[in-house]
Amino acid sequence: MKNFFFLFFLFFLFSVLRAEEMELPKNLSPQTRQCIGCHKLYTPGIVHDWLKSSHSKTTLEEALKKNELERRVTVKVLPPEFSMIVVGCYECHGQNKEKHTDNFTHFGNKINVVVSPNDCATCHPEEVKQFSGSKKYHAIKNLIQNPLYHALVSTATGVTTYEKGQLVQNNPTELTLHEACLGCHGTEVTVKGFKKVKSLSSGLEITIPDLANWPNQGVGRKNPDGSFGACASCHPRHSFSIEVARKPYTCAQCHLEPDVPAYNVYKESKHGNIFESVGEHVWNFDNVPWQVGRDFTSPTCATCHNSLIVRSDGKVIAQRTHDFGGRLWVRLFGLIYSHPQPKSGDTTIIKNADGLPLPTTFAGKLAEEYLISKDEAEARKELMKNVCSSCHNTDWINGHFKKLDNTIKETNEMTKTATTILLEAWEQKVADNKNPFDEPIERKWVQQWLFYGNSIRYASAMSGAPDYTSFKYGWWELTKNLREMKDYIKKKESKD
Amino acid sequence: MKNFFFLFFLFFLFSVLRAEEMELPKNLSPQTRQCIGCHKLYTPGIVHDWLKSSHSKTTLEEALKKNELERRVTVKVLPPEFSMIVVGCYECHGQNKEKHTDNFTHFGNKINVVVSPNDCATCHPEEVKQFSGSKKYHAIKNLIQNPLYHALVSTATGVTTYEKGQLVQNNPTELTLHEACLGCHGTEVTVKGFKKVKSLSSGLEITIPDLANWPNQGVGRKNPDGSFGACASCHPRHSFSIEVARKPYTCAQCHLEPDVPAYNVYKESKHGNIFESVGEHVWNFDNVPWQVGRDFTSPTCATCHNSLIVRSDGKVIAQRTHDFGGRLWVRLFGLIYSHPQPKSGDTTIIKNADGLPLPTTFAGKLAEEYLISKDEAEARKELMKNVCSSCHNTDWINGHFKKLDNTIKETNEMTKTATTILLEAWEQKVADNKNPFDEPIERKWVQQWLFYGNSIRYASAMSGAPDYTSFKYGWWELTKNLREMKDYIKKKESKD
Amino acid sequence: MKNFFFLFFLFFLFSVLRAEEMELPKNLSPQTRQCIGCHKLYTPGIVHDWLKSSHSKTTLEEALKKNELERRVTVKVLPPEFSMIVVGCYECHGQNKEKHTDNFTHFGNKINVVVSPNDCATCHPEEVKQFSGSKKYHAIKNLIQNPLYHALVSTATGVTTYEKGQLVQNNPTELTLHEACLGCHGTEVTVKGFKKVKSLSSGLEITIPDLANWPNQGVGRKNPDGSFGACASCHPRHSFSIEVARKPYTCAQCHLEPDVPAYNVYKESKHGNIFESVGEHVWNFDNVPWQVGRDFTSPTCATCHNSLIVRSDGKVIAQRTHDFGGRLWVRLFGLIYSHPQPKSGDTTIIKNADGLPLPTTFAGKLAEEYLISKDEAEARKELMKNVCSSCHNTDWINGHFKKLDNTIKETNEMTKTATTILLEAWEQKVADNKNPFDEPIERKWVQQWLFYGNSIRYASAMSGAPDYTSFKYGWWELTKNLREMKDYIKKKESKD
Repeated sequence: MKNFFFLFFLFFLFSVLRAEEMELPKNLSPQTRQCIGCHKLYTPGIVHDWLKSSHSKTTLEEALKKNELERRVTVKVLPPEFSMIVVGCYECHGQNKEKHTDNFTHFGNKINVVVSPNDCATCHPEEVKQFSGSKKYHAIKNLIQNPLYHALVSTATGVTTYEKGQLVQNNPTELTLHEACLGCHGTEVTVKGFKKVKSLSSGLEITIPDLANWPNQGVGRKNPDGSFGACASCHPRHSFSIEVARKPYTCAQCHLEPDVPAYNVYKESKHGNIFESVGEHVWNFDNVPWQVGRDFTSPTCATCHNSLIVRSDGKVIAQRTHDFGGRLWVRLFGLIYSHPQPKSGDTTIIKNADGLPLPTTFAGKLAEEYLISKDEAEARKELMKNVCSSCHNTDWINGHFKKLDNTIKETNEMTKTATTILLEAWEQKVADNKNPFDEPIERKWVQQWLFYGNSIRYASAMSGAPDYTSFKYGWWELTKNLREMKDYIKKKESKD
Repeated sequence: MKNFFFLFFLFFLFSVLRAEEMELPKNLSPQTRQCIGCHKLYTPGIVHDWLKSSHSKTTLEEALKKNELERRVTVKVLPPEFSMIVVGCYECHGQNKEKHTDNFTHFGNKINVVVSPNDCATCHPEEVKQFSGSKKYHAIKNLIQNPLYHALVSTATGVTTYEKGQLVQNNPTELTLHEACLGCHGTEVTVKGFKKVKSLSSGLEITIPDLANWPNQGVGRKNPDGSFGACASCHPRHSFSIEVARKPYTCAQCHLEPDVPAYNVYKESKHGNIFESVGEHVWNFDNVPWQVGRDFTSPTCATCHNSLIVRSDGKVIAQRTHDFGGRLWVRLFGLIYSHPQPKSGDTTIIKNADGLPLPTTFAGKLAEEYLISKDEAEARKELMKNVCSSCHNTDWINGHFKKLDNTIKETNEMTKTATTILLEAWEQKVADNKNPFDEPIERKWVQQWLFYGNSIRYASAMSGAPDYTSFKYGWWELTKNLREMKDYIKKKESKD
Repeated sequence: MKNFFFLFFLFFLFSVLRAEEMELPKNLSPQTRQCIGCHKLYTPGIVHDWLKSSHSKTTLEEALKKNELERRVTVKVLPPEFSMIVVGCYECHGQNKEKHTDNFTHFGNKINVVVSPNDCATCHPEEVKQFSGSKKYHAIKNLIQNPLYHALVSTATGVTTYEKGQLVQNNPTELTLHEACLGCHGTEVTVKGFKKVKSLSSGLEITIPDLANWPNQGVGRKNPDGSFGACASCHPRHSFSIEVARKPYTCAQCHLEPDVPAYNVYKESKHGNIFESVGEHVWNFDNVPWQVGRDFTSPTCATCHNSLIVRSDGKVIAQRTHDFGGRLWVRLFGLIYSHPQPKSGDTTIIKNADGLPLPTTFAGKLAEEYLISKDEAEARKELMKNVCSSCHNTDWINGHFKKLDNTIKETNEMTKTATTILLEAWEQKVADNKNPFDEPIERKWVQQWLFYGNSIRYASAMSGAPDYTSFKYGWWELTKNLREMKDYIKKKESKD
């Protein structure tokens, strides 16, 4: 056995010596230097990724010397252990070990497998705090602990069998949920114990934590240290890139047609057209703060929703936020109607007048006490208008928002009509309301608000994606769908 | 009040002084210099956009010194007021004031809000003249004044309510039309009077024209000076970029699946594949004239449809045109059959043998006197083949067009079959023909020609997007749809 | 007539002299020099394309001097005629003349119109050999000679007419097949004789082979020399670019939603997101071998499926292969169930327990003798895991593949449920099984496995495209579709 390790060591030495020399930062912690010693060979993808990051290029001391607007960290006092070194493997994977049930000893170092927002908070506390107020932070709970949404999830993703002439709906398996809904919302990663695996790249057998519900990068993931979130959802892997997060492709992983077609609509909008034609690889997506005009001349998702935006005189047009609904006054995403943003990121606390955990009743009455006030909504809308005003005049902006208000009103009316037809179907026993999501007419009803209503509202909000508004998941479908729902009742009636 | 303005002035001065110095062109008109004085701070997006444009870099005198093929302006005689200056804010927003009902006094200058093609014609008269002959120029009228298309628009986009067990179709609101059909076709922008607004960026209260049906960038927009068109549809905002117009993302704003999937098909074609892989940010999209081989090695939309294309010896392969149908012999877009291009850009004048304002009858008979002759069609096809011949040999090209001809014939046959079934449905009272666009079987009929037939023809014309031709909005849907239409009749019959 | 040629010659000379000087490689064969003499003027697109290629820059002698991992050619012994020259027009279009029925005399040179894999094999024999074992090599046969698939093709793409109240299905025409299924699978290009054409670019009348089923770039194309394949499908036209082939846009031409949504899913995955945000125009897509980390930090299609991947110490992570299924253990593409990869690229030899030419029975039983063994499957899976291990740890990778295994199992169960319902429909005469692909309920059945099951499996394999898994062609459709199939039976029954 000893001989084996000796041979391995020789082979390893030989491999390392053969490897092309990779230029490493000088001020690495000894632990990080040790990590990279092997991993530059065995997982070169992530080591090179990290080499491109600000983490590998900047010590926290240097980071804190920048003026406040230019700072990428929000910690105020320098943690002494970070003073002279850049942020490497161990600085992130070695944080808050005591909280991490996924901590294990790896070649002498105590390492956490999963780096959590709570670890990132060592240097980025404000960002994590903002995020904690968001619906994204509560993304698992908001989906799974809301009995109505949970029923929708189960009905849509469970294996269905056919027994004695009847379709039998089974509950979805965990693994399928992890790839479907929880692919975006996040899983609950826990530690079941420890296990041995033989590393695919080094061939070594190592002992590691045995993680359940892993891997997963959903934005609301529950981590083995008890925290929520996965910063890598948007700042992926080891480059922790602002550029990646500011480009719309990142948001596109979860915000896509048919249910939340934010990216699809952006691409078709004039803003997206300019970004793709002359912005994508030309503008500066890394500057902090992000200066309108100098750095970019058309917004991406991050411009309006998240980034710290300034103008040339340093005036802040919008403060940075990682509370993704923080600048929003309305929730376009219809449940089942578009409605004012909820006050809390935790939407499970909502109860509407029908006693259901929804922000509106089926008839459209708002669960007002759980939603932001009109004043708050107006204040947020003004803030968003400020962003627009870097390129557009006030009248243009007001005209744009007037159209959006009308679109919200009309698509809500279309949802109401569909709901009325569904209620009639239930009354006439053409469908039964035990599960409101399984029968064909019920699916049509869901599509009315979840696919078509939403698409039109997103298109309106982003000032133009006329084919989404008109034909593709738009008004064409909205009006066709109502006729087909009505037809469904008629046909079923005529049968009985 | 005076104090307030004084304080504001001090604040403004302070802001301007704090602002990063922006390098401005030297030869600005005094009015433009004044505009930029404030707007570089308040709307930096558009000022930076303009700084990247040829307008900010070239005087008309210099522009006219270029040889004819290289010229970006088509005016022949130098307007004296433009001789020594570059084209700035005032040069465009101050044109033809007497015609502009949207002219207003803004900090001492008489300014038009909306710059129209008629204003651009000061330097670009030929482009505007070409455009005036196009269907795009007549885009509002062609849609709204054609009673049949208008019925389609109204049926598809109007709010529908459910009253006493019946669906009630309301007329669409103006605001919804502006975002749907008129988002591409254009609105009629008029001046209702004047109003005061408080500027979001400067905080100043200013008096401005009160515009109706604004904002809108639809290509056939009617402007407050009585002219038609919006050059910014394709040369967006203040960079007036040829690069943007030559990239397919621009055309993609309106030419998308499911009704006119030009961009979707391009992306899947070999031409699009090469553009995206090695062209997008590598080729020269700004050279005038555009030289095949040197500047690009695969076409974009503009190559075949619009741009001035030359080869290395200066031979013109295709003349520039802003009449977007000018190089086309066939109109792939089926109304309801694909047919030869109309002679006039104004398609409301067409009357077919059934007396309907359509280029074909329901049975497929052409309204020949309104359509270009076979000779003209052949001449245009030859011109298009010339473009292909820069990279492909003659036999290849002929083979390609033979396939396209066949595709047009077969998809038209499929439209005819669907129409025959619909007529039977009307005859048998399974549906009623008062409104040919509202009932489910009628929607299927529309999708047959508007979605599926069109998609297949676009895919054929662009030489390959086999998944569009086969499955996605292609033959799979075309054949499935017919069976479902037939089924619809059978089911309804069996009921009665 | 002689005068005409003299005039033409003068004109030609004049044109050539006027043409901008193009810098040509020095070591051209005399034939290639002659080709370019005219073609730089008449088809500048392809000449410039070639100028960018390695072919125009490297002699085979230089190519063979590189060490083995860096070599782009696999021929071992230098063919003497290539020793001192770069690879130009004649070197490819003049190969193996005796085998080419499409050979013709063109301005004194014997030229083949179609360059085939057998010609490329002069320098790239290994690549062609690998390709010959693939399903792509047999792409025409696999589709057209399988009676079941052929029936699907015919039913989906044939013109349908309506005669005496009945839909009449005609066979698809050759020209439509060429644009639909055979656009990807390839046509059989044959020579019908010779013909005269007047060249569009030069105006000269020339005699050329009269090719049938041309043009076509399908990957399994049968060529006039009897060989199969079209290298230009993925290394398009005359740049023969590795970069193009390594970018996902190329694969996207055929691997698209709704049937094989590989590209669509990639775009939505984290890998695709990183590629589009920071890789596309930044990483090195041309290096041979392709080194993880240094050259790229997120995979494209080619990384996992084809390219020679190494790490910094020169260790080969994956050998280059042009057998596109060679690294794959499972065939996600369900026919009708997802199943182990077939042993042979020729799938027409398969016969299942029902005697049908399918890899599984309708009940899901595998035609095991035609499919790879479990051991072989495991070995291939390990190989693929090696690719993942350049960036991911072993546990992460195993967790990923566990989800994929489950997804395959569950989507197969969903196919089985749909098949059971279809069999019931056939039994109850709600549909007839003469043609299993024409009636509406049969189309729903096909979509269950061909569209929805496939999409979910691709999304799972590429580690995440949650909207495909959930809503878009995913579980939402899978469960909805079953209910609609059941409804179809109920409605039809109630009628009778």
